[in-house]
Amino acid sequence: MISVGIVGGTGYTGVELLRLLAVHPQVGLEVITSRSEAGRRVDDLFPGLRGHCDLAFSAPDPDRLGACDLVFFATPNGTAMTMAETLLEKGARIIDLAADFRLRDPAEWEQWYGMPHACPALLEEAVYGLPEVNREAIRQARVVANPGCYPTAVQLGLLPLLEADLVEPDGLIADCKSGVSGAGRKASIAILEAEAAENFKAYAVPGHRHLPEIRQGLEQATGRPVSLTFVPHLAPMIRGIHATLYARLRAPADAAALTARFEARYRDAPFVDVLPAESHPETRSVRGANACRLAVHVPQGRETVVVLSVIDNLVKGAAGQAVQNMNLMFGLPETTGLDLPPLVP
Amino acid sequence: MISVGIVGGTGYTGVELLRLLAVHPQVGLEVITSRSEAGRRVDDLFPGLRGHCDLAFSAPDPDRLGACDLVFFATPNGTAMTMAETLLEKGARIIDLAADFRLRDPAEWEQWYGMPHACPALLEEAVYGLPEVNREAIRQARVVANPGCYPTAVQLGLLPLLEADLVEPDGLIADCKSGVSGAGRKASIAILEAEAAENFKAYAVPGHRHLPEIRQGLEQATGRPVSLTFVPHLAPMIRGIHATLYARLRAPADAAALTARFEARYRDAPFVDVLPAESHPETRSVRGANACRLAVHVPQGRETVVVLSVIDNLVKGAAGQAVQNMNLMFGLPETTGLDLPPLVP
Amino acid sequence: MISVGIVGGTGYTGVELLRLLAVHPQVGLEVITSRSEAGRRVDDLFPGLRGHCDLAFSAPDPDRLGACDLVFFATPNGTAMTMAETLLEKGARIIDLAADFRLRDPAEWEQWYGMPHACPALLEEAVYGLPEVNREAIRQARVVANPGCYPTAVQLGLLPLLEADLVEPDGLIADCKSGVSGAGRKASIAILEAEAAENFKAYAVPGHRHLPEIRQGLEQATGRPVSLTFVPHLAPMIRGIHATLYARLRAPADAAALTARFEARYRDAPFVDVLPAESHPETRSVRGANACRLAVHVPQGRETVVVLSVIDNLVKGAAGQAVQNMNLMFGLPETTGLDLPPLVP
Amino acid sequence: MISVGIVGGTGYTGVELLRLLAVHPQVGLEVITSRSEAGRRVDDLFPGLRGHCDLAFSAPDPDRLGACDLVFFATPNGTAMTMAETLLEKGARIIDLAADFRLRDPAEWEQWYGMPHACPALLEEAVYGLPEVNREAIRQARVVANPGCYPTAVQLGLLPLLEADLVEPDGLIADCKSGVSGAGRKASIAILEAEAAENFKAYAVPGHRHLPEIRQGLEQATGRPVSLTFVPHLAPMIRGIHATLYARLRAPADAAALTARFEARYRDAPFVDVLPAESHPETRSVRGANACRLAVHVPQGRETVVVLSVIDNLVKGAAGQAVQNMNLMFGLPETTGLDLPPLVP
Repeated sequence: MISVGIVGGTGYTGVELLRLLAVHPQVGLEVITSRSEAGRRVDDLFPGLRGHCDLAFSAPDPDRLGACDLVFFATPNGTAMTMAETLLEKGARIIDLAADFRLRDPAEWEQWYGMPHACPALLEEAVYGLPEVNREAIRQARVVANPGCYPTAVQLGLLPLLEADLVEPDGLIADCKSGVSGAGRKASIAILEAEAAENFKAYAVPGHRHLPEIRQGLEQATGRPVSLTFVPHLAPMIRGIHATLYARLRAPADAAALTARFEARYRDAPFVDVLPAESHPETRSVRGANACRLAVHVPQGRETVVVLSVIDNLVKGAAGQAVQNMNLMFGLPETTGLDLPPLVP
Repeated sequence: MISVGIVGGTGYTGVELLRLLAVHPQVGLEVITSRSEAGRRVDDLFPGLRGHCDLAFSAPDPDRLGACDLVFFATPNGTAMTMAETLLEKGARIIDLAADFRLRDPAEWEQWYGMPHACPALLEEAVYGLPEVNREAIRQARVVANPGCYPTAVQLGLLPLLEADLVEPDGLIADCKSGVSGAGRKASIAILEAEAAENFKAYAVPGHRHLPEIRQGLEQATGRPVSLTFVPHLAPMIRGIHATLYARLRAPADAAALTARFEARYRDAPFVDVLPAESHPETRSVRGANACRLAVHVPQGRETVVVLSVIDNLVKGAAGQAVQNMNLMFGLPETTGLDLPPLVP
Repeated sequence: MISVGIVGGTGYTGVELLRLLAVHPQVGLEVITSRSEAGRRVDDLFPGLRGHCDLAFSAPDPDRLGACDLVFFATPNGTAMTMAETLLEKGARIIDLAADFRLRDPAEWEQWYGMPHACPALLEEAVYGLPEVNREAIRQARVVANPGCYPTAVQLGLLPLLEADLVEPDGLIADCKSGVSGAGRKASIAILEAEAAENFKAYAVPGHRHLPEIRQGLEQATGRPVSLTFVPHLAPMIRGIHATLYARLRAPADAAALTARFEARYRDAPFVDVLPAESHPETRSVRGANACRLAVHVPQGRETVVVLSVIDNLVKGAAGQAVQNMNLMFGLPETTGLDLPPLVP
Repeated sequence: MISVGIVGGTGYTGVELLRLLAVHPQVGLEVITSRSEAGRRVDDLFPGLRGHCDLAFSAPDPDRLGACDLVFFATPNGTAMTMAETLLEKGARIIDLAADFRLRDPAEWEQWYGMPHACPALLEEAVYGLPEVNREAIRQARVVANPGCYPTAVQLGLLPLLEADLVEPDGLIADCKSGVSGAGRKASIAILEAEAAENFKAYAVPGHRHLPEIRQGLEQATGRPVSLTFVPHLAPMIRGIHATLYARLRAPADAAALTARFEARYRDAPFVDVLPAESHPETRSVRGANACRLAVHVPQGRETVVVLSVIDNLVKGAAGQAVQNMNLMFGLPETTGLDLPPLVP
């Protein structure tokens, strides 16, 4: 059994971790912290967990957390980096579901996140937790930077093309649509039901924090600069990301041939599902499931390849991927506790 | 391992059965039938099941079905009754998720369902599959009539009051709200997204088929006639039933004392969760989960008790309850394969 | 032209007033106040009003407001009562869309709203602005208390029964469902899209502020005490209230005869639409429209009458009714500027 | 007064026409046809129109229709072309809200719509009813082809760039998201609430009928071939189109300068609203309103311009644009009857 602590369990990634860990056969949840809810039972805040979680929230205690085999941070950006070194010294390993360890360059991190990085030395050690790219490094990692939701959907959709040098590395376009749970569980007028339902809009077009993360991943794959236009949109639904990805082909190719390339690239990836060429994956086909489904199109036999990539932002885009990383770090089969079908309808 | 067949797997109760059986450790799914989709892979129709179901739909074959230990009927009303005797003769047991075996009186069945009953003799043998009432009988049953969604929510909310003779048996009111999946997966203008979203309405107020089923269950509990006004509403969501139940107390009582009664009544019911007095259960707290959550109110210290009862219509109101019944019929722990937390948010 | 001011224009009732006044042929909007948004253009906050409103928000100024013919208060409870006397002295008339003048008894007001009333003397003068009850008094009023959303739907549905002494005045039940805009435009986790969508729940069952308002109206109609159980629910949609009302008939009656009574009662009410007996009105049939649609049922020929009543909480339940009251106060035809069909789908 | 007939009034564009014409001061609606609903009152099918429409549906009668000044076709594709010549001979003018007259090349029409064109001679005479391009020609037209919803949003967003030769005419991308009302009011499983809510997907990526229509409009604007990738998506909402448009700039330009170009281009277009540079228009800001709102971005100072374009698919994308065309055809101010603010929230 892996003894586990969660720092910051009151947000959506936190409660989703609780849902997944509740059915994981190899995890013992020891402690879950929240300053604001300290003393309150978890299942009082989230009645859906009645019968599945007997803990109460507690204030963060480095000794209790450090005694765990693994600590998940489901906190706002800037929290994990202040506690990481202490917990590592005490022998715990760390998976940060926020952004603290995602960018390798501390200067770029500061630019996008608006604060100095508290432990830049760890940035070099931290492993970017996209198992489909870094599976072996994750197994050994002390610190895993769990990827962002958009970066997961976009990278899984573009990597097979860029790694094989099939498309131009400039002029890439990622038109992404996310459900509102991606904005977190926080009091904000913009994501009220009365504001966000029956409505659709783009946001952060001039610049979104996931852009440098995506770019870093794609450039690592190609070994050279890429140019990407990333436009996120808010869709009137709770869960799900749909990334529609556009790239110019270096040479003519049809959807079937490209699909075969994708299948080969993800042959050993249990959570990436390549659909038949010219399919239209739906976000609900991964709702609650740790899966990314991909489909490839080359419309009208033209020069542009279109990749459709769907994930559940809270699962493969957050808590599910974190559990997948945990499984790798502790030598379990990658799919342990994660083999649940989506909720449809 | 229990060998299982499903007749009619293309509707919402059918696909929900598939989702639950996919993670059930003691079930081998042998055959799933659909005349209209015969030959098509199940996971082609429902891509969310890719990796979880390797079967293709086939035309119903009494021999193949009869060779199963158990056959679920996830069919329209009027189908199971035409095949039940044949399958029983071949040795299979049956759980019908439709209404064919729910009413004990064939005349009343004909009146509400508009066709003669094909095997009235079996009505007497069939057991009404509400485990919280008929647990022992279900264990031995050859034919289980899985309850309707509304009847499950209403009966679980009213039984503790009626069995203990705490409320008047007339003037009962069940104001029920259901998500649209309760209307089934069928081409119908009234349940289009553009018709049903951002809209709320009552329907079938003059008479709904679940009324006699509820009445039968309540009268059996009290041993005398009850009078019930049942008003179903269509709520703009996919899953969930919220029953708001009103009854006149025979003698003054407060919510706390009544709540204690409910807790006692359901002490041994693993899927009925009595919340603290004056709670407000949410439908999402049971989304995807085989649970009924109940809360009791006596507003303004008056003569009227209000019970709030929530279920997922496709789980405790259909497929989950069917699996619960299967577990009982085959001597498994009642919760086998059903201990999943709800999907929140 | 009526010169109009609006105090507090940043909430949903405020912006709905702006939408309606933008097409009213006899209104000149002079000033709209907001402390938090002072200086900002209205159409910058609400881009949908670009081209329809040239004003900027300003801090409240009693002189500018007092110079208007009419001031609408679209403010939180407790604001209008602090400014009313000053504005009346300056010659303005007032319509308060909040609750400050709805209850005639200052002690009851304090009990439910948790603060002392700032001008109890005006409570006696103020007219409760339900035109279908107080049309003549509204014409002369200096202060109109615009009714709450639930009280509008419930009273219009029950008054014809109570006024004609057709039902028992005790044991009344109002099971009401509201869209989330009724909770206002404020940063609150409970009404986030990710919390409220795909979810249904009751709230405030032990006691809701609209209960004494409804009771006051019903008791005035009958001239004696009534007993009412009022259960509000939050439905996953933006606009709309559906009230399902239950009462015990004093003598047997059928739906058709009762419907004729309703039609007679509302013959002169241009915004109350009595549907044929046993209809099922939908909330979307009044979306954006100043209308209440009603239908009467007596299910299974029993002793209980069921009335279905739908309104748009922001229109007939707030801003539209306020404009209707304004029309009456200033001698315009009651329907001026309000004769718009609903938005369907 | 313009005497008007509507052929096919039971779909969403038909009922939206009825909503708009109900408040149009210069229209007398004479006849509305539906074979399937002949004899039924319009406000029985659409209770929201009670009090706004006294007509009943009738079977199509060329004499009655031909006696109107104007006949709107709100029919499936392939209907208007079979009646157009007869009605023109009788003196009526025609606006077809379907696709029969949108493509100038009958061969291309046959290829995309799968049937021979019934009156190819009229294709040459018909005027494409995008007032922002063809205002003068529409005034004189006997037959107006009302544009499709996607083509309206896409063309209005790209025309200022292409007409001024600011972007490359190849590699254009239109990533479009539509509410489900765009799929029409027809019994279809794919657009059920239980299928389409809480879900997001692309569709028809290999080829959509609006592609040749968009291409024709863009090529006419530039005078040379354009290459466009068009990906439509189904968003879980009723109304609204959000087009996210990508083009490569011929020369560096910033968003402010490009925005000024857009403002100049649409200076005389009352229904096109250019927002400040780097805005994020929301679909709800045009819900129910005959408006297109546009915003221009050049993210990260790169080579790609991003235009965001929102319309209500049923208004500026269908019925509202049809009324705008009618106003032009009959010499009325372009905005007559169309100056309604959107419904927000």
